[in-house]
Amino acid sequence: MCDLKPGERIDDLQRNGLRIIQDPERFCFGMDSVLLSHFVSEGKNTGSRILDLGTGNGIIPLLLSALMPGYEIKGLEIQEESADQARRSVEMNGLSHRIEIVNGNIKDASNIFGASSFDIVTVNPPYMIGGHGLKNPKDAKTIARHEILCTWEDIVAEAKKLLPSKGKMYIVHRPFRLAEIISSLTAAGLEPKRMRLVYPAIDKEPNMVLIEAVRGGRSRITVEKPLIIYGEDGEYTKEVYELYGF
Amino acid sequence: MCDLKPGERIDDLQRNGLRIIQDPERFCFGMDSVLLSHFVSEGKNTGSRILDLGTGNGIIPLLLSALMPGYEIKGLEIQEESADQARRSVEMNGLSHRIEIVNGNIKDASNIFGASSFDIVTVNPPYMIGGHGLKNPKDAKTIARHEILCTWEDIVAEAKKLLPSKGKMYIVHRPFRLAEIISSLTAAGLEPKRMRLVYPAIDKEPNMVLIEAVRGGRSRITVEKPLIIYGEDGEYTKEVYELYGF
Repeated sequence: MCDLKPGERIDDLQRNGLRIIQDPERFCFGMDSVLLSHFVSEGKNTGSRILDLGTGNGIIPLLLSALMPGYEIKGLEIQEESADQARRSVEMNGLSHRIEIVNGNIKDASNIFGASSFDIVTVNPPYMIGGHGLKNPKDAKTIARHEILCTWEDIVAEAKKLLPSKGKMYIVHRPFRLAEIISSLTAAGLEPKRMRLVYPAIDKEPNMVLIEAVRGGRSRITVEKPLIIYGEDGEYTKEVYELYGF
Repeated sequence: MCDLKPGERIDDLQRNGLRIIQDPERFCFGMDSVLLSHFVSEGKNTGSRILDLGTGNGIIPLLLSALMPGYEIKGLEIQEESADQARRSVEMNGLSHRIEIVNGNIKDASNIFGASSFDIVTVNPPYMIGGHGLKNPKDAKTIARHEILCTWEDIVAEAKKLLPSKGKMYIVHRPFRLAEIISSLTAAGLEPKRMRLVYPAIDKEPNMVLIEAVRGGRSRITVEKPLIIYGEDGEYTKEVYELYGF
């Protein structure tokens, strides 16, 4: 039914019978991808074309295929092995008619796909600034986590080209970079319109931030209710259980 | 002991025996001023000079006098009647040696006080954009709530002049203006370093945001744990009770 390579396994996504091929030595998807996919699906979206920048093993296109019926989704991934893994997951789920995985560099995205070619661009980018002094800069996990092959500024510059007026960019990132993210989006004319902070618990600092920006939008942002992961009983909150489809 | 004008009353601030003169027809302080004062006192502050821009009836200087021993505090207020009311509250509390209220325009602040003349600038500004079409643009409450006599950009420009390198600006504002606030601070070299969102309840959108910006700071922000006003039992949370000194 599908070819697994050494170290790979198949995980159930608990949604629409979807499954994904993962390799713990390379990268496994985390809660950030799940939260971003739901945050996208909760937006007031129009159009039919989605691009996921730096798609990794394809988790976001797979989840969006279930959450956003009617959309055609492309995923761009620079690491050939990850792109191949994502492609095999798409085929395994019988979604080749809706999802296409492209092997390429985010910095070339608007050349690869053309200007204004998507209604929605999503990104779960490397969170950590720079790559100086890293032990394994060519390691798959390191590339996914650190700004080695592209920076946040590169991503904003390409997203601006890829989106037409009113096109939407959806981001999950770490809160410590919030000021930089908002400033660079605003400077690029990608106006932050919706934001949600993700707190591990009600008495903890947030560890993720979800942002929706609109190309050419006017300056006014809705900050949503907090997304809290664990309740006071130490269990997932009701909202998180629902997101995971339990 | 003190001269009250028609319509004025004296309220107890529940802290260090402080009292304040207020007139419900003009403006009474709200939770935003209380939360901002505590947020300021929780910062890693140095120096000894604080300026509160648009001080109204002087609530923030009064609270800071209790929360930040050793600091000399000035308050700038454009409305003569409010400045007079604030001055009488300062005298009533025997704080004239530590707090000075100045009647003047925020746009002239750096001319009035001189460049780099404060270690800390605080502001609880008018929240609403513009003043077009308002029924009573000269009304004291309207001036306090709407950007009639000065805009957010005016405030940022003056704060930048008033602070030396590493000087701190503390702001309370409405979340719907968050993107604009962060972008303009960053553009002015006032780097947002600490932020806290205030949620009326755990399942509600935030209605206030507290920000600390540092002149010449590097880009990295700490987003703090949520400040939640009402618990699930409908009562103030423990943190809010403590802030109010009960």
